[in-house]
Amino acid sequence: MKNYKLTIAYDGSRYNGWQRQGNTSNTIQQKLEDVLSRMAGHAIEIHGAGRTDAGVHAAAQTAHFKAQLPLTPQEIQNYLNQYLPSDIAITACEIVPERFHARLNAIGKHYRYRIQNSTVPNVFERKYMVQDAAALDLNAMHRAAEFLCGTHDFRAFSSVNRRFKKSTVRTLTRIEIERIGAEIRMDFYGDGFLYNMVRILAGTLLAVGKGEISPTDIPVILDSLDRQYAGITMPPAGLTLMEVFYDTPHNQE
Amino acid sequence: MKNYKLTIAYDGSRYNGWQRQGNTSNTIQQKLEDVLSRMAGHAIEIHGAGRTDAGVHAAAQTAHFKAQLPLTPQEIQNYLNQYLPSDIAITACEIVPERFHARLNAIGKHYRYRIQNSTVPNVFERKYMVQDAAALDLNAMHRAAEFLCGTHDFRAFSSVNRRFKKSTVRTLTRIEIERIGAEIRMDFYGDGFLYNMVRILAGTLLAVGKGEISPTDIPVILDSLDRQYAGITMPPAGLTLMEVFYDTPHNQE
Repeated sequence: MKNYKLTIAYDGSRYNGWQRQGNTSNTIQQKLEDVLSRMAGHAIEIHGAGRTDAGVHAAAQTAHFKAQLPLTPQEIQNYLNQYLPSDIAITACEIVPERFHARLNAIGKHYRYRIQNSTVPNVFERKYMVQDAAALDLNAMHRAAEFLCGTHDFRAFSSVNRRFKKSTVRTLTRIEIERIGAEIRMDFYGDGFLYNMVRILAGTLLAVGKGEISPTDIPVILDSLDRQYAGITMPPAGLTLMEVFYDTPHNQE
Repeated sequence: MKNYKLTIAYDGSRYNGWQRQGNTSNTIQQKLEDVLSRMAGHAIEIHGAGRTDAGVHAAAQTAHFKAQLPLTPQEIQNYLNQYLPSDIAITACEIVPERFHARLNAIGKHYRYRIQNSTVPNVFERKYMVQDAAALDLNAMHRAAEFLCGTHDFRAFSSVNRRFKKSTVRTLTRIEIERIGAEIRMDFYGDGFLYNMVRILAGTLLAVGKGEISPTDIPVILDSLDRQYAGITMPPAGLTLMEVFYDTPHNQE
């Protein structure tokens, strides 16, 4: 059996997220497994680096699957790109060591949240941005971002079920916020992200930009461990998983 | 009566082109006139700089309309952007001299044709590009472009009806062809373009890139005045009207 790593781009607009769920077939994972299984002639299960929610996009999601196939990685990639819907593309396919696991070996991720900060919509990228024309204080947003970076219990910034005993401690290594024309682009780098965490971080930073939350409120919100004090959960359309990081090259066995 | 100039961006994917046509309401012009007329309380007719075909996009189409409105240009722009569908946006609205005419005063246009030159689709821009993975000789395309620039009878590069007596002489001032990652971007600047001319120019240059047409065939094709010798009419999705040029600033009366 060989172990294959896929890098996948998708426009998540019309999908119920990444993860295959019971009889909901309209997920990215299900579309990939359908085409892969048809190619192989038997069922193939793929394992993603993580879920993305309904409507969230990916520039470079990763996944692995094990199979014995009479095709080169390039042939597999071409087959998938030929039969996948036009809003899902395989940007890379490579053979990796058998122990490689897309989720367990991931050491970090980069997410981007995009806001069209104008009364004029961006017609070409409207499905990948959320429009909000409010005047924003980027300096305040930068100060708030500094308070968010580092290792914290991010329970206040997640929609995680309180009864779950799993750790909600994560490390945000970097947040970049910049204005590019009418676009406000927020980039989040961290070792892992809780459920809805990026969308709540974006909503909180936006509230800071509008003066509804002060940068110095951020440590208080973090300490509260209480979801109600953070900003809103921003809509999924503005969110894109940009990259999944691994600590070693894994090109060949 | 005041004269207003609109600059309009649209994703043309789901429209029957720019121009209002009989009982086909699904055009950009019709959508604009519907919202403008609702705002004014009476019918308003707009005049575009030129037609774009079904499925063709615009980053900056222009149009003018005459009306007496109790609103500032900014208020008109905001109203339109609020009520237009999300794939049409007004990027500018200004008062211009009464003699300004969006089509008659236009002295040139810039069109862009985009090709995703890879077996990997571009999922995020798939509606604005046409995919063709063939190996392309860009040097040959540049040489062919040199033959196309200048003042010529472009009858061979148009779908114009032969019986029409209108001049088919146009001046192409510049063609730029460059590779940006997996994208081949062709920019066409000229004083005017015949029906389907940019899409046929793009199809011909693509055929040159593939070695199916030689750069030195271009003068022969031009001289033939015969549509059958030029390349195919490329699909509309790859084409975007980038800008309409006017020779004088017309910001205020």
